[in-house]
Parts: sequence; structure tokens; C-alpha cells
Amino acid sequence: MTDAFLSKFIHPASTKIVMLIMDGLGGLPAAPGGLTELETARTPHLDRLAGQSSLGLTIPVIHGITNGSGPGHLSIFGYDPIEYEIGRGALEALGLDFDLQPQDVAARGNFCLVDEEGVLIDRRAGRLPTAESRELITRLREIRVAGVEFYIETVKEHRLAFVMRGEGLSPALSDSDPQTNGVPPLKVRALKPEAERSAEIANLFIEEAGRLLHGERAANMITLRGYDRLPTLPSYAEKYHLKAAAIAINGMYKGVARLAGMDVLEVGGMTLADELTTLEKYWADYDFFYLHVKQTDICGELGDFAGKVAVIEEVDASLPRILALKPDVVIVGGDHSTPAVMKAHSWHPVPVLVHSKYVRPDNIHEFGERACQHGSLGVLPATQIMPIVLANAGRIAKYGG
Amino acid sequence: MTDAFLSKFIHPASTKIVMLIMDGLGGLPAAPGGLTELETARTPHLDRLAGQSSLGLTIPVIHGITNGSGPGHLSIFGYDPIEYEIGRGALEALGLDFDLQPQDVAARGNFCLVDEEGVLIDRRAGRLPTAESRELITRLREIRVAGVEFYIETVKEHRLAFVMRGEGLSPALSDSDPQTNGVPPLKVRALKPEAERSAEIANLFIEEAGRLLHGERAANMITLRGYDRLPTLPSYAEKYHLKAAAIAINGMYKGVARLAGMDVLEVGGMTLADELTTLEKYWADYDFFYLHVKQTDICGELGDFAGKVAVIEEVDASLPRILALKPDVVIVGGDHSTPAVMKAHSWHPVPVLVHSKYVRPDNIHEFGERACQHGSLGVLPATQIMPIVLANAGRIAKYGG
Repeated sequence: MTDAFLSKFIHPASTKIVMLIMDGLGGLPAAPGGLTELETARTPHLDRLAGQSSLGLTIPVIHGITNGSGPGHLSIFGYDPIEYEIGRGALEALGLDFDLQPQDVAARGNFCLVDEEGVLIDRRAGRLPTAESRELITRLREIRVAGVEFYIETVKEHRLAFVMRGEGLSPALSDSDPQTNGVPPLKVRALKPEAERSAEIANLFIEEAGRLLHGERAANMITLRGYDRLPTLPSYAEKYHLKAAAIAINGMYKGVARLAGMDVLEVGGMTLADELTTLEKYWADYDFFYLHVKQTDICGELGDFAGKVAVIEEVDASLPRILALKPDVVIVGGDHSTPAVMKAHSWHPVPVLVHSKYVRPDNIHEFGERACQHGSLGVLPATQIMPIVLANAGRIAKYGG
Repeated sequence: MTDAFLSKFIHPASTKIVMLIMDGLGGLPAAPGGLTELETARTPHLDRLAGQSSLGLTIPVIHGITNGSGPGHLSIFGYDPIEYEIGRGALEALGLDFDLQPQDVAARGNFCLVDEEGVLIDRRAGRLPTAESRELITRLREIRVAGVEFYIETVKEHRLAFVMRGEGLSPALSDSDPQTNGVPPLKVRALKPEAERSAEIANLFIEEAGRLLHGERAANMITLRGYDRLPTLPSYAEKYHLKAAAIAINGMYKGVARLAGMDVLEVGGMTLADELTTLEKYWADYDFFYLHVKQTDICGELGDFAGKVAVIEEVDASLPRILALKPDVVIVGGDHSTPAVMKAHSWHPVPVLVHSKYVRPDNIHEFGERACQHGSLGVLPATQIMPIVLANAGRIAKYGG
């Protein structure tokens, strides 16, 4: 509803937008009464920019929900993260940082044990150690079926991620996992006529897996379940009239950006500096750049408070390279919080900053959680950031007379 | 939509939650430029807790709506107060602090005057004085019908509240009030087949009332209208996997808590100290405790600013007893505002505090309306408090990868 309303007023312009996302940016104090990671970090450039910006705290999904990076990115990209759910199979692949493509069919799988008649003895193969699982996986990578590529990855213990890539595949497939021992795994069936060939391919893969694993004591078969693919979203071109590009190192973020119809740019290295070089290189070619920093989240997940602080300081030190390009609008934010003290994602609202020459500055000269809580954007759904950004980019027409 | 979404992620845990509701908590300054009741009160314990909490202002229904305690409680309990409307008959009973049960059928009634042919002369019996109404009511309490109990209470002047309690009753009944003089009151008709017996019982009650009041000059008949019962809500057990208990002195709050499937605990007295004793006694038995303080609202309604301040200070002094139990999450809030200067409920957002060891403290060391307006929860619908509470209680799983 809001989306349809907004779309009537969006028009193209020649302005340029940079959205800098520090993954898991939001944090918590290391000790009661203390400062968060972002508040601890020495960030002179971000603080100066904050003084010329509108600040706020974003809620990625709804209050209280701890979200993954998938929904968190969809939300700050302007897509309702509840409406556009990324299914379990696709999620498993994205979660492994697999560069899932829109037409790929993904599923979750198990290593399992069957007896000589092919009857399931243990659906989880005794939760075999991850290292053993990785070894068995390498065997399965030999499987070939004409016209399709397979990707198979260990998730943890018996759990694996399975992806089929090729023309005309469909995720309308039944599970081969019968969810109980004492019966044989099921044949994969097509749930729609157009999935017949996909069912055949999945069954071929499973049969071949059984052949290759025959005689193994830890696990001698696999099952697959929960087939799906990435959701289809209106692209940034359709939705916002933006020619958008993504600059990210990790596959998952490339995958989510591709969902939004962004071009994923080649980054010639693994560092933030490499990402900035990419930004500079393609500066003339796009209206919108999404730039992703992963290390904030990694440090948060590891409980490395000081490491997260250091990454934020590195980002701060790099900010002048972005500002030197003279973007019309800069957003600095995150896809969720990952407080180091929790060693996990959390539900806490995420600091955000929107800068352009048209913002009404909040007179807050600091970029931090408690500073942003006093900002003029308030505590708002992350999905509302893009309309504000587009307005600041001179890309929204007036409503009514 | 949001509810269905949220419910997928809620799981049980062993954490304990206390929700302390001061009825009509929000206030206004007694004089321009002054402080509200809560801001005036000396609240060292609440202020200290505020410093370790997330603060905000809750909107019970929507901006601008002044609400009663029924919708106000539903909202902060996490139920959409517009979707779950408590009907007029049930409201009349709850509003009188009647301990309405889920299967009770409630209606609103009038004392009225009829002539010798039974034709209505005055639908409101000349708005007879409340004292007279109370006297007549005592007569009606003698009425007996097998298999059903009646409760009848004076509301004000000619208005009364009527409740039937028994097996298999239905509120699908037509009004006996014809809404005009010059005609006889109508027979109560069953609007659904299952209401036949209820219609018969209501008619028996009305006939008997006419017989008992025969010859009275002030009022010699009653009419009944607007039959309904309490709405059916998903219980806290279903909705939140919480074993929940309510500690309240007044019937209305017990009634609303019972709607949410909370066990209503016996309080051995009428004071806040008695309520806290109950909390301590049952501490091991429940996950969630709703604790209600009525006096804040009563003082507000009476225009007793100093009285409301004193009640808040009493609550503050009692806070250590709650904190001594080491709850994982504490919420302090209200169901609506009742500013003493207005002597009535109002639409003003209500201060709220959510404390747990996982909140990101707002660095605001005061619990008051203007302090809470700077909090990180922002100004938010009261229905969003419970998801935040559940997150802090470790009871919500992660969404997406």
C-alpha cells in the first residue's frame, strides 16, 4: 500500500547515493554503565558527518525480533522483510555465504545411514563430526548430470546445503527425507508439472550419492528437504528508478543485493580499501552504491569487542574516500545489531545516519546508539529509510497541491 | 499479520517477567511549566532502574484516543485493542469492577416506568437518583431461576448492569428496550437457536422484576439491551508460551487478565504490600506476573495531584521487593494517562520502562514523561512492548540467516 503510493512519486535524477552498511553495527556496553562498540570507537569523520545529518535508530523487522542479515538487508533496502521471506533452503545456502543466483534451486540435506535394504537406520548419521562430513562432501562433488551444476556444502555435523543450477529448474519438489527412521528415503516427486525434470535430477543426484557413499560406516546416504529459491522482488530500477550497484566481499550479501536487482561489482581483493577502489572505479556508472562491511558482525559474533571497535575505526578512517566522491546522499547504518557481549545477533535498534545538503541537521555531533536515539528520524522501521534517502536525492515528486 | 509472524519465533524459556502497571500512570503538569505527577514524585528506585533500562512512551490505542482500562490493558498485554473490542454490556460490568467470567452473558439495563397496560411512559424513569436505584436493585437480587445466577448492579441513575452466569448461555439475544416510549418493552428473542434458553431466562428475569417493582412510583420495570460476553483471545500460553498470573485487587483487572488466560491469584488484602506478598508467594509457579496498582488512576480521576504523587512514591518504595526476586525482565508502565488536572482519562502517551540485563540502557536516569520521550523505544504502540519483553527474556528465536 505504502509502496504503491510511494512509487507514483519517484522519478529519475542525476544524483548519487552511497549506502554504507556495517554488518551487525548496533552493540551493547561491555559493562554496565559503559559504552557500546560504536560509542567506544574513535570516529572523528563519522561524528563530523553526524553533525550534518539526520540521525535515528532503525528497527529491521519488528521490535523484539532478532534477524539475520537476509531480512536485515531487505529491510534497509526498502523491502518488507516479512512479506519477502527468504526460505529455509535458500537461507541455508546464503547463510553459508554461498553466492545463490535467482534461478538456483536450494535445499537442506542430511547425511544419514541406511541398512542393506535401503531402510533408514539413522536420519542424522549419528550427527557425524563436521570434519567427517566435509570429507564425504568432497566425494559428492564428483556427481555430474548433464545440463545442471550442483553445489553441495557442509553446514554442520550431518547437515548440508544443496544447490542445483541450470535452465528451467523448479523448486516445486517433495522432500526425500521421510522424517522418521525404519522406512526408506522417499523418491523426490514433482509437485507441479514443470518440476518433472528437476525431480528427476534430484533423484539422480541422491542415487549417485548412495552409490558413492556405499560401504561408508559414518554415513552412506543423503536426504534432501525444503526446496526453494530466492524470492522475486521488484528491482531497484523498477521500484526506485535507480541504477544500483553492490560492493560486497561475501556471497550472501551479493545474493541479497542481486535480489534487489543490483549489479554486483567485482572487487579486486578482500579489504575495505579494495571495496572503496571499486566504488571509485564505477562511480560514473551508477546512481546508487551499496557498500558492505562484514567484519563488524564477525567480531560481534566472536565476542571481540575491541576488534569490532577497530573495524569501526577503520571504516571511519576510510570515510573521506567516500565523501571525496561528493555523493548527494550518504547513509551509514546496519542490518541488525551484533553486540560483542552477546556474541550473537540481537533485536536492538540500529544506529543510522542520513546525510545530504538538504537534511535538517539534528545538532548531534556524534554517531552512536545513544546519540542516534535523540535524532530526528526517531526509532523507525528500517524500510522507511529509502523514502527519506530518495527525497534527499531529489527523486520524489510532490504529493497534492 | 505481525502476530502470526511473531508467534513462529516464540519459544519457552525459564526466565521470569514482572509487568507492573500503574493505572492511569501518565499525567500533566499541575500548572504551566510545572512537573507531572510522576515527575514530581520522589522515585529513587524507579530512577535508578530507568538508568539501566530502555525507556519510551506507549500509545495504548492510537494517537488522540482516550481509552478505558479494558483496551489499555489489552494493548500493553500485546492484543490489538481495536481488533479485540470489549462490548458495551461486558464493559459496563467490567467498568463496575465486576469480576466478569468468560462464559457470563452481560447486558446494560434501564429502570423505566410503564403504565397499567405495560406501555412505556418513561424509558429512563425520570433518571431516578442513584441512591434510589441502589435500593430498588436490592429487590431484584431476590430473583431466582434454576440453573443460572444473576448479578445486577447500579451504574448511575436509571442505568444498571446485568449479568447471567450458568451453563450453555448465549449472548445472541435481542434488546427488550424498544428505544421509544408509548409502546411496551419488547420480549427478548433468541437471535440464534442456541440462545432459546437464554432468551427464556432473560424474559423470566424481566417479568419477575416487573412483579417485584409493581406499584413503585420511581420505577416499576426494567429493560435490557446490548447483550454480549467477553471476547475470546489467544491465551498467554498459546500466544507467548508464558505461564502467566495476575495480581490485582479490583475485579475489572482480574477480568481482563483472565481474558488473556492468566491465572488470577488470591490476594490476602487490599494493599500494594498484600499484592507483593502474593507475588513472593507464587514466584516459583509462573513465568509472567502482571501486577496492578489502581490508586494512581483513582487519584487522577479525583483530581488529587498530591495523592497520585504519594501513590507513585509508595510504588517506588516497594520496588526493591520486586527486584529482590531477581526477575529477568521488569516492565513498569500504565494502561493510559489520567492527569489529575483533567480529572479523567486522557490520550497522552504513557511512560514505560523495560529492564533486563540485555537492554541497551538509554543513559536517562529518571522515570518520567519527558525523560521517557528521549528513550530508545521511542513513542510506540503499547502492543509492541511484549515482543521487546520476550526478546529480553530470551524467548524469541532468530528470523532468517
